[in-house]
Amino acid sequence: MSMNTFGHLFRVTTWGESHGPALGATVDGCPPGVAITEATIQHWLDRRKPGQNKYTTQRREADAVRILSGVFEGQTTGTPVQLMIENTDQRSKDYGDIAEKFRPGHADITYWQKYGIRDYRGGGRSSARETAARVAAGGLARAAIETLAPGVEIKGYMTRIGAHEIDRDRFDWSQIDANPFWTPDAQAAQRWAEYLDGLRKSGNSVGAVVEVVARGLPAGLGAPVYGKLDTDLAAAMMSINAVKGVEIGEGMAAATLTGEDNADEIFMGNDGQPVYSSNHAGGILGGISTGQDVVVRFAVKPTSSILKTRQTITRSGEATDIVTKGRHDPCVGIRAVPVGEAMMACVILDHLLLHRGQVGENRGAIG
Amino acid sequence: MSMNTFGHLFRVTTWGESHGPALGATVDGCPPGVAITEATIQHWLDRRKPGQNKYTTQRREADAVRILSGVFEGQTTGTPVQLMIENTDQRSKDYGDIAEKFRPGHADITYWQKYGIRDYRGGGRSSARETAARVAAGGLARAAIETLAPGVEIKGYMTRIGAHEIDRDRFDWSQIDANPFWTPDAQAAQRWAEYLDGLRKSGNSVGAVVEVVARGLPAGLGAPVYGKLDTDLAAAMMSINAVKGVEIGEGMAAATLTGEDNADEIFMGNDGQPVYSSNHAGGILGGISTGQDVVVRFAVKPTSSILKTRQTITRSGEATDIVTKGRHDPCVGIRAVPVGEAMMACVILDHLLLHRGQVGENRGAIG
Amino acid sequence: MSMNTFGHLFRVTTWGESHGPALGATVDGCPPGVAITEATIQHWLDRRKPGQNKYTTQRREADAVRILSGVFEGQTTGTPVQLMIENTDQRSKDYGDIAEKFRPGHADITYWQKYGIRDYRGGGRSSARETAARVAAGGLARAAIETLAPGVEIKGYMTRIGAHEIDRDRFDWSQIDANPFWTPDAQAAQRWAEYLDGLRKSGNSVGAVVEVVARGLPAGLGAPVYGKLDTDLAAAMMSINAVKGVEIGEGMAAATLTGEDNADEIFMGNDGQPVYSSNHAGGILGGISTGQDVVVRFAVKPTSSILKTRQTITRSGEATDIVTKGRHDPCVGIRAVPVGEAMMACVILDHLLLHRGQVGENRGAIG
Amino acid sequence: MSMNTFGHLFRVTTWGESHGPALGATVDGCPPGVAITEATIQHWLDRRKPGQNKYTTQRREADAVRILSGVFEGQTTGTPVQLMIENTDQRSKDYGDIAEKFRPGHADITYWQKYGIRDYRGGGRSSARETAARVAAGGLARAAIETLAPGVEIKGYMTRIGAHEIDRDRFDWSQIDANPFWTPDAQAAQRWAEYLDGLRKSGNSVGAVVEVVARGLPAGLGAPVYGKLDTDLAAAMMSINAVKGVEIGEGMAAATLTGEDNADEIFMGNDGQPVYSSNHAGGILGGISTGQDVVVRFAVKPTSSILKTRQTITRSGEATDIVTKGRHDPCVGIRAVPVGEAMMACVILDHLLLHRGQVGENRGAIG
Repeated sequence: MSMNTFGHLFRVTTWGESHGPALGATVDGCPPGVAITEATIQHWLDRRKPGQNKYTTQRREADAVRILSGVFEGQTTGTPVQLMIENTDQRSKDYGDIAEKFRPGHADITYWQKYGIRDYRGGGRSSARETAARVAAGGLARAAIETLAPGVEIKGYMTRIGAHEIDRDRFDWSQIDANPFWTPDAQAAQRWAEYLDGLRKSGNSVGAVVEVVARGLPAGLGAPVYGKLDTDLAAAMMSINAVKGVEIGEGMAAATLTGEDNADEIFMGNDGQPVYSSNHAGGILGGISTGQDVVVRFAVKPTSSILKTRQTITRSGEATDIVTKGRHDPCVGIRAVPVGEAMMACVILDHLLLHRGQVGENRGAIG
Repeated sequence: MSMNTFGHLFRVTTWGESHGPALGATVDGCPPGVAITEATIQHWLDRRKPGQNKYTTQRREADAVRILSGVFEGQTTGTPVQLMIENTDQRSKDYGDIAEKFRPGHADITYWQKYGIRDYRGGGRSSARETAARVAAGGLARAAIETLAPGVEIKGYMTRIGAHEIDRDRFDWSQIDANPFWTPDAQAAQRWAEYLDGLRKSGNSVGAVVEVVARGLPAGLGAPVYGKLDTDLAAAMMSINAVKGVEIGEGMAAATLTGEDNADEIFMGNDGQPVYSSNHAGGILGGISTGQDVVVRFAVKPTSSILKTRQTITRSGEATDIVTKGRHDPCVGIRAVPVGEAMMACVILDHLLLHRGQVGENRGAIG
Repeated sequence: MSMNTFGHLFRVTTWGESHGPALGATVDGCPPGVAITEATIQHWLDRRKPGQNKYTTQRREADAVRILSGVFEGQTTGTPVQLMIENTDQRSKDYGDIAEKFRPGHADITYWQKYGIRDYRGGGRSSARETAARVAAGGLARAAIETLAPGVEIKGYMTRIGAHEIDRDRFDWSQIDANPFWTPDAQAAQRWAEYLDGLRKSGNSVGAVVEVVARGLPAGLGAPVYGKLDTDLAAAMMSINAVKGVEIGEGMAAATLTGEDNADEIFMGNDGQPVYSSNHAGGILGGISTGQDVVVRFAVKPTSSILKTRQTITRSGEATDIVTKGRHDPCVGIRAVPVGEAMMACVILDHLLLHRGQVGENRGAIG
Repeated sequence: MSMNTFGHLFRVTTWGESHGPALGATVDGCPPGVAITEATIQHWLDRRKPGQNKYTTQRREADAVRILSGVFEGQTTGTPVQLMIENTDQRSKDYGDIAEKFRPGHADITYWQKYGIRDYRGGGRSSARETAARVAAGGLARAAIETLAPGVEIKGYMTRIGAHEIDRDRFDWSQIDANPFWTPDAQAAQRWAEYLDGLRKSGNSVGAVVEVVARGLPAGLGAPVYGKLDTDLAAAMMSINAVKGVEIGEGMAAATLTGEDNADEIFMGNDGQPVYSSNHAGGILGGISTGQDVVVRFAVKPTSSILKTRQTITRSGEATDIVTKGRHDPCVGIRAVPVGEAMMACVILDHLLLHRGQVGENRGAIG
């Protein structure tokens, strides 16, 4: 993972700021012959698009993706795919205040300290808009996975907003696309709607937990040490802005378990493939996929742009206070769901290619 | 991060298995002129060494490091430093059982499925012995940091064993080196000792949480998107075997906070540097260090090698059960403390070099 | 160097094909605070632009560059710079012939064999148009070099077309920009003009040698083994399409010299810096710059698109012949001059950053 | 290619100096299941070993390789392979002279200027001893190629020493292993023997040209732009110490050809595979292998350590002269033959894996 690139063989470099003319993803290493159109990718972008409901930012962006290279007659050619999204909603506005003041919880101050220059008109590279490029790249990755490993399904959903967690007993896969929070617990969705209404009115925001699952993966993806599947997933999720924690399987709760409780027992399934009594491991043992669901979870911190007065300083070091007005999400975690899915797709594809490169087919049969 | 390498400019490649002749770290990109001796590195290895107390594995390894290259007359030359540790305690033993059976919770089954070959005499690359190489590399990184950014302090400690967490009100920095658990809470250390005694007798194991702090870092380390300081820390920690979750600052708990509670307010300190009202961010905003303590936390799952009978299958797919005898840790998290410190040191050094490379000195003064 | 990326810290990824909507360069790792505008970059692109004189392809392209990201108020921000060039001259034309037949000397056949898909409307990624993206990136690199190491001058020129070499005794630096061949030998320019006229009329083409020099570099850039300055220069030049050989200093002729003749003797200059009796080494010893001129030379093969009938096969394996009509260069080497300069600029900047990253300032004073 | 690493998926990092305890190669990304022993690798090392005949350095080194990791029961496991060679012949000797004086043509002065520290007891990293590690890695690469692409043959030989070139009409493949110069021209071998005798007596040295051929490669290896097969070969060969020029196929001579002469015509062979009228391209079109012989050529400069008095300066900047005594090669190019073969093997294997990773099987059939 270089400064603005991730992936080993399927390499995604994103570029662009929230208030420049465009942003996008330069995708290198995609296999040739993958059927792809702008519409296929647009489908995934539309899920992330702001302004879709009252729980997300009201900035209106078409987020229309254009494929500028690497695709010929509806198929990838194996050369770099350029996915560009133009910024259309750049309302003229007075930025004088945030040009001088550092917004607490934002990257304003650290960017300034590091680079000595900063596009104060928005979050620059740390804007949530950057994640549109990831979602576009993820759409391409999904199409490639379908070619290489048909049957793999990647799905993200919310499991917590603030103090309010879902009830796993009410987990209903079919509910995920039926509510604005992509949550599998329909009752939680109702409760969250009320909670967020209150929060928005009070000008506050809240954090969230997103879980992303990859189903139907073959065993054998990953590597034992640094190229672990979980290492790359952790990096991928932590690289999303506002993410502060990443878990695989049991995650932090693994610390509370005994070895007896934690180790998933192994049996032979009816189809001659190993099955497990449970999935504490989150589908990964020793850095390598087991064939179970790969389960990743990450925490998104609350948006720092709130209507509450906060103490801060100016660029010249004077004490002041700030209220961040503007079009912001009360719970930026909602829009992180399609982003987490996209990152999962990119990592999975990368490891499918890596495995094929080093090993070819899986080598160790059981039974 | 390549398959067995991590780091951008300070690049560490570890090699070796638990039961081969040796293991080590090939370290590329170390600055020249860093004062280093085998003794300096040995100091850190001795902290990780097994068999030091009854709470860690009784395997006896000298873990003596040899510097084979890259150092001349007590200073690094800027060329690759080879740090080799010979394996000395390879008791002859009957491995017949684990050669055929997959141990639940271990990488045995996934290695076999991926590679079709497996050094069944130990965990191979997934053995905790691999972490000795990381600690050696971390010792070198610490020495280089001292040259580049004197005053930086890196310290790890345990905050939880199983259900037993420390009490932050009893946090005493000076206690960390005074107990076998490297915990800042002396009362917790006593409680944990009893708890682990019972656990060992019953042949069980338990997970743990380790926290690593870097103090005295300059502001400006990291990058906005994929090369975020937190991304690299998350990858570094998740790449340690048995780690299942990684947190920065508030970590997963950030999901439960409101924006008002979470965003650290900014003030000017007496020394003309910004200070913050709190450190929910864990010292990193927008991927870049703020100058506050950088705080990382990770969960280590319980050792899967336990004296309890577990169901599993053989390589030929037959159902069987297994009890893993041998020299194992009831809480492998204890020995993960120096490993986490080493990874922190390597990541910090790497980002000091990256920042100097791209930016030189910090460019944005405040005040 | 990844599939479509080169550079360690200053990383350039080019994308786009000759007949797609656009092509460009995604440039990561540029230092912040570099003054840059589209006009600055356009200056270099205009030198490479086709259709400028009768010795280069008559395809008419504006080759107008747009900066889509990474620059704010006339300065780089330290985040990725996207440099996009739209393709405007895509005349509708019957491609039926070259869609089916493989042109000898072109990449048509190998692309097909590798990928099973090919944009037959032009050379795709292997089109000389790809080099426009390199020239744009090189323009940015030049601006950054000016900030980091003022006084460095990078200049390319032709030393040979076919059998016709320049006479080094007539080498006149001021002539380089005064003729359509960028050659320092004014008499050669006249001779070449006649020669190429005849060649174009006969529908043939010819190869060339380009030399690129970097003056005023500090000593100490590069590394001893794989990260050698000459290794990166060789890769950079060989990565240009149609290049078949690369030389540093004496190059292939070094094979004919004795040690006595080859080793440049060392003296102290009046300014307290070492000077050398000669520059057989091309400014690089042991992979590291000496402070003398860095001299790289590369051979460009003749354009394979010629009006001569050549034997070939079709995609279905039938024998046929082909004459490649169209807008092509009799000597593609001419337009390779600004491309070679651009690659030199990118490599030099990358090594300036790498050196600063690992070492900081030079450490070994003489005298 | 990082500072001391080359390769994308098959990654080789060499370490060690000429006068340290050991040197070696850390090889990451080797496929699992490759049959390999120390003896297999030793076979290739013995070809490079110094002191074998009077035309190479008389330093006596066993150059015995040890496999420290990554191999279990005679097969690679897919984890890093550590290949270590201990330095045994480090005669005690007075280095006072070369500790203070910079040897012309050597890296002494640039190392000092860059790093401010230098192992003056030998060339340090720039010693030809470093190439032993490459040859060891190449031995492993050859074994892996045999598994992946049986029938590939890699062979290097000398085509020139100083002014004396081979006669291609006398090219006899079977002669290559029959003379101390690995040259296919038996008459040249005789002439060279006399020539080098005289040169050694006079204390002088001379350059050479080495050609390396890979036969039996499949079409489709490489990539169109920066990941070109020829780019990686150029970098690989230029990274060998003392190499000053690299050519593919016609190489620099391509500049002298017309398009009509240069483009290899295409026909269908009897086995349904394309054949070519000639191989000016050196087996690579558009960066991708054609299936013909891949032909690389490189020039090695004369050893700079000669018994002739040369002017130089000391570390304190005083003018002086120097005669480099010691055990040195009159023509270091001879020992570069197995090194060039090793680099070819590593690059070929890397591209076999890369192709399999991104594309799988070749996709475009002809006929």
